[in-house]
Amino acid sequence: MTEDLDALAKDLDREYVFHSWSAQAGLDLPVIAGGSGAVVWDHAGNRMLDFSSQLVNVNIGHQHPAVVAAIREQADELATIGPATANLARGRAAQRILDKAPDGFAKVFFTNGGADAIENAIRMARLHTGRDTVLSTYRSYHGNTGAAIVATGDWRRMPNQFARGHVHFFGPFLYRTEFWATTPEEESERALQHLERVIQSEGPSAIAALLLESIPGTAGIMLPPPGYLAGVRALADKYGIVLILDEVMAGFGRTGRWFAFQGYDVVPDLITFAKGVNSGYVPVGGVIISPEISATFDDRVFPGGLTYSGHPLAAASIIAAIDAMESEGIVDNARRVGEDAIGPGLAALAEKHPLIGEVRGEGVFWALDLVTDRESREPVGADVIGRLKKELTSRGLLPFAAENRIHVVPPCVVTDGEVQEAMSIYDEALTRVEGDLA
Amino acid sequence: MTEDLDALAKDLDREYVFHSWSAQAGLDLPVIAGGSGAVVWDHAGNRMLDFSSQLVNVNIGHQHPAVVAAIREQADELATIGPATANLARGRAAQRILDKAPDGFAKVFFTNGGADAIENAIRMARLHTGRDTVLSTYRSYHGNTGAAIVATGDWRRMPNQFARGHVHFFGPFLYRTEFWATTPEEESERALQHLERVIQSEGPSAIAALLLESIPGTAGIMLPPPGYLAGVRALADKYGIVLILDEVMAGFGRTGRWFAFQGYDVVPDLITFAKGVNSGYVPVGGVIISPEISATFDDRVFPGGLTYSGHPLAAASIIAAIDAMESEGIVDNARRVGEDAIGPGLAALAEKHPLIGEVRGEGVFWALDLVTDRESREPVGADVIGRLKKELTSRGLLPFAAENRIHVVPPCVVTDGEVQEAMSIYDEALTRVEGDLA
Repeated sequence: MTEDLDALAKDLDREYVFHSWSAQAGLDLPVIAGGSGAVVWDHAGNRMLDFSSQLVNVNIGHQHPAVVAAIREQADELATIGPATANLARGRAAQRILDKAPDGFAKVFFTNGGADAIENAIRMARLHTGRDTVLSTYRSYHGNTGAAIVATGDWRRMPNQFARGHVHFFGPFLYRTEFWATTPEEESERALQHLERVIQSEGPSAIAALLLESIPGTAGIMLPPPGYLAGVRALADKYGIVLILDEVMAGFGRTGRWFAFQGYDVVPDLITFAKGVNSGYVPVGGVIISPEISATFDDRVFPGGLTYSGHPLAAASIIAAIDAMESEGIVDNARRVGEDAIGPGLAALAEKHPLIGEVRGEGVFWALDLVTDRESREPVGADVIGRLKKELTSRGLLPFAAENRIHVVPPCVVTDGEVQEAMSIYDEALTRVEGDLA
Repeated sequence: MTEDLDALAKDLDREYVFHSWSAQAGLDLPVIAGGSGAVVWDHAGNRMLDFSSQLVNVNIGHQHPAVVAAIREQADELATIGPATANLARGRAAQRILDKAPDGFAKVFFTNGGADAIENAIRMARLHTGRDTVLSTYRSYHGNTGAAIVATGDWRRMPNQFARGHVHFFGPFLYRTEFWATTPEEESERALQHLERVIQSEGPSAIAALLLESIPGTAGIMLPPPGYLAGVRALADKYGIVLILDEVMAGFGRTGRWFAFQGYDVVPDLITFAKGVNSGYVPVGGVIISPEISATFDDRVFPGGLTYSGHPLAAASIIAAIDAMESEGIVDNARRVGEDAIGPGLAALAEKHPLIGEVRGEGVFWALDLVTDRESREPVGADVIGRLKKELTSRGLLPFAAENRIHVVPPCVVTDGEVQEAMSIYDEALTRVEGDLA
């Protein structure tokens, strides 16, 4: 019976569901029917350790009872209401988020996810500065929208025809330096010099925003070297540019802090968030706005919006998730487990396995950068990653893979025992794949 | 105590929440704490008739018990799971949607809302045709995203740099014709001739998609004249262009049909949806895909995706909403109430009130086009609409206003009695405003 449900779920999926970032033929995806904490299972009860947090979003773990209860209660009261209303859950969610942000942020604009948080942050920066160009790094991911407002025909299109003026630069990444640097300090200094040269070459008076992930996530979890983000802040100030830090993946506990940038002596003008804010229990994202930028729209219409902006069900789940993360010390657990268990565990794996070129990360936000050769640092190919995924999955671990890397990104609630179990699985899988390659 | 909650909701909203499509200073938005069917209320229990369906999305009415129950059950089982899994609720939701679509559609791609449904439909059309240009009408609204993927630095940006090639044309709208037409048939014929001239002038081999709302919604609820949409289909076929019909606002019952285009002898290649599919109880949208376009991505990676694509909570609410709309005859009620009550009621108002230049619509999807003068058809200004909104709101009706129009867009479950009550309120408010203007 339960096996039948697994078979049915697979059949319906293959027949009717079109999947993200995939060729659709031959997809064979695991059935997930339930979960708890860092564990998920199918209908037959086969258990998997979730060291992906799905798309690095289930920070509070699967099925946290307080968040589930909040969703149930809000569903009973009022599931949905339009944005042009005042709603208590929405106001309280905004208040909770601002409580966690550095002092001085003014307001929260709610969106449906991370991509439209970025869209609206860029919109705010452009209208606030009267400039067009947005600088962001090559190694970054900010979401996948990019055309609907230009397709729009009515007046809302007119202030939004910004499908231009995107320029990319190189961020710091010592292991694969673009700047011939040999130390973190040198990488930081040279990356800042490169960024200033790009600003000068593009023309500072044309640049609306500097947009960076505080810690680039899917691109490889590259912790900023000493002084880099503070240096970016200084360049933004020097040239009157809005600094947007994208905390969609890195924020709300992932690093062992509420916001990743809080470890790097920098305060941005706009913060984008999604994922960890409510662990994705209800789709939501948003922008935390400085008083200066908020004031720009006191008497001027902000030309952006969404039917589901400030959705009550999402708001209720945000309140419950932040409160539970606070009262249960979940953010602190992410820090501690990173220091005590994941960091040392991955370092031990790196000692043993020549496939591992570099281990990077903090909290529950780590990458294994896999190489064919430690000298050349040549990334492994898709075949190696494919084999590793298979070995990990068959041993009961849901992995997160990106390019030549395995990201070790469990929920913030992961226990030391679960980390130990996972380390054994990574060890076995690496041994097996290295054996096959030898 | 309950009044205190209303005051608290207002205070939190003013202090912390940044609102869509608004100047932020001086916003005074109604507090909504609960609802049922076509009625909402604040914490003190003050009741309002919701003739806006919020942003024309609460098709099934507020707090439908079956949809609330489905959200509660799915929250207990599994609130969220990533897109690279198979999930029973997701598969069943896709199946339900395809059941309602015309025969022959293949798959559903789920997004977070309408804007990213459009983004992904455009992406599919461009990659399927190998062409860039997207034609859409001036009187349209398709969502407000437009920059994040071009800001993205990694490989996902490369196939998505389509922030260009958007061209706009005039759709048919006899009351304010762009074609010097005098009959619906003439308007249709001339609008098609105009569209073909735009296609020829842009170069047919450059055009990926024709994107239209089946019935333009926020732009004014202009029902397509006889033969227009069938003519657009013929032009798309003649020139090998993908036809995308945007059913975000018009779909899932609003017109008294499951899809608005089903009244107009046309089948598109891609259908975008959101809003009515689950009445917005959980944020969701998506694209219904033809077999030909789906097959394009069988062996080729579709370069788009979302963390919350196919969200289980959204999926569960879709299943329940479609099943309840089916079993309770809710779509049929929308048709019937439009024919029996709203249409005749608005016609009677138009007889009496010179402010009303035209009444247009069907089902629960109607517009009052307000004019200073019936001869010149000069649209009324923002001051008149502002007064009307105030008169309507103070009489206990939540209106939907756009430019010079009041849209009469209650939930599909609205009763004849509620329509009568609303007609009296519209009547009084119009009388009052006309008196003030005289």
